[in-house]
Amino acid sequence: MSETVVITDVGPRDGLQNQPQVLSVEQRLQLVNAIADCGVPQIEVGSFVSPKAVPAMAGTGQVFSALDAAEFVTPTIALIPNMKGYELARESGVKTVTMVVYASDGMAQKNVGMSMAEAELVTLDILKLAKEDGIEVIATIAVAFECPFDGATDPAVVKNIVAKFLAAGADQLVLADTVGAAHPQQVRELTATLVASHGAEQLGCHFHDTRAMGLANVYAAVESGIRRFDSSIAGLGGCPFSPGASGNVATDDIAMMLQQMGFKTGIDLGKLMQASDLAQRLTGTAPGGRSKTWLQGYLAKQVD
Amino acid sequence: MSETVVITDVGPRDGLQNQPQVLSVEQRLQLVNAIADCGVPQIEVGSFVSPKAVPAMAGTGQVFSALDAAEFVTPTIALIPNMKGYELARESGVKTVTMVVYASDGMAQKNVGMSMAEAELVTLDILKLAKEDGIEVIATIAVAFECPFDGATDPAVVKNIVAKFLAAGADQLVLADTVGAAHPQQVRELTATLVASHGAEQLGCHFHDTRAMGLANVYAAVESGIRRFDSSIAGLGGCPFSPGASGNVATDDIAMMLQQMGFKTGIDLGKLMQASDLAQRLTGTAPGGRSKTWLQGYLAKQVD
Repeated sequence: MSETVVITDVGPRDGLQNQPQVLSVEQRLQLVNAIADCGVPQIEVGSFVSPKAVPAMAGTGQVFSALDAAEFVTPTIALIPNMKGYELARESGVKTVTMVVYASDGMAQKNVGMSMAEAELVTLDILKLAKEDGIEVIATIAVAFECPFDGATDPAVVKNIVAKFLAAGADQLVLADTVGAAHPQQVRELTATLVASHGAEQLGCHFHDTRAMGLANVYAAVESGIRRFDSSIAGLGGCPFSPGASGNVATDDIAMMLQQMGFKTGIDLGKLMQASDLAQRLTGTAPGGRSKTWLQGYLAKQVD
Repeated sequence: MSETVVITDVGPRDGLQNQPQVLSVEQRLQLVNAIADCGVPQIEVGSFVSPKAVPAMAGTGQVFSALDAAEFVTPTIALIPNMKGYELARESGVKTVTMVVYASDGMAQKNVGMSMAEAELVTLDILKLAKEDGIEVIATIAVAFECPFDGATDPAVVKNIVAKFLAAGADQLVLADTVGAAHPQQVRELTATLVASHGAEQLGCHFHDTRAMGLANVYAAVESGIRRFDSSIAGLGGCPFSPGASGNVATDDIAMMLQQMGFKTGIDLGKLMQASDLAQRLTGTAPGGRSKTWLQGYLAKQVD
């Protein structure tokens, strides 16, 4: 019996907010539905941020309302940057929120104008409230491996954050390689230590492919027992505040690799190619999975 | 003290013979010199095949003579397909030859019109002669993981070939993922078994990036103790007889990843970018490393 890996497609949030084309609510719904149709088990649908700061995420409340009205069944997630975002998400009936925690002062200052410790306190306050409200919380640790401002991240900082947030009741912790700088040996070591301390069930990873090591890092984390990964349809993504960061690992590539390794992902690769095509058409900039040419040829042969 | 990984750039052979542009002897020498200038420790310079079958490799003898005349110091390798090729290589003063051994009947038939066993006998005959002549022999096992004609390769077949050729005096055995179909778990398992039986010193790996898993496979092999890898400048490469195969893992990417992991490769990344640019200019089709955009930006910043 094969093991399951849970993929969360973050393309409609991390992807869309980091490319120039601003999609309409209708187009965002089209993309979310196409991703769900593939069997992707979780989707990060949008973020409740200031529309002035991130125009691509304006109307996230409408996206959630429309999904509710359509009785959308795939579990959805909203990213929230602060208490105001949390309140908006709660009003929109969001059941799971992702909050960003920082593993460096440089990134915390750049993103939210606070020190790492100050930002952590804000996040712990929201976590407490969310627990009372019965809302699931994913804490994503930004720059968990390297920060473009402060350099290599001390693994001890990440270990402390994970322990503190699990103790405070967070449902999941995600190690984010925000700028795509991690190498697989580093990933293997940090994830092995964390899995040894906390088990793998509540841990996930989020990689970018900036230095072409995205899939190598996924494999390294799998070797440590990690079974939850963020990825982005057609490789959409990046980070506007991180110099040199490029797209997330493509859902196209990670699904293919994990399935080839014998894991169940629940994802239909044929339908995934259609969703990837749609993401490319809607944005004009999504690169598509790096294995896409091969995968399309392979799938075409299977049909013949 | 950091460990060393030995990279062999096979771009001037595996790369050039699998792209449409036929380079002159002068241009091939220019490329070989540029690769040597980076500090790449070994270069597969060309093959002694029929110029009718592979026009891009016509004049390989002249390339070797010119390198000899210039007192070229980087160790060089020639690929030889058969006894005639071996004799031509010997006449040209080649000190190390690579011979292809097949792990499937389908690929052996397609490439040399023999069964796997027949092709093996021919190769063992050449190996015997080369030992007498004092010429080093690398045996590259084609389709060591999967064959486009016969499907998944039985690891037992590969283990037998490795044991037989080491016993017969081969200096190195290289596991080639000829069509870029291997996944990292498969690589980890086969390499771990082989290293347990024979040690890592005489074993190497050769990956293609067709399904985007090239660097993941390199990392998996590194985890098993493998410290020798083939790669190709600017990701040049492919295999004309393997449907769907694309370029070799780029030297650009593998050197960056291994150095980031703390290994010594002897390669200067700045000069490597220049060699990669040259490969792209000369062929018009070399993709360049997938980390090249990032790497160039990073190197530019270091200089500032």
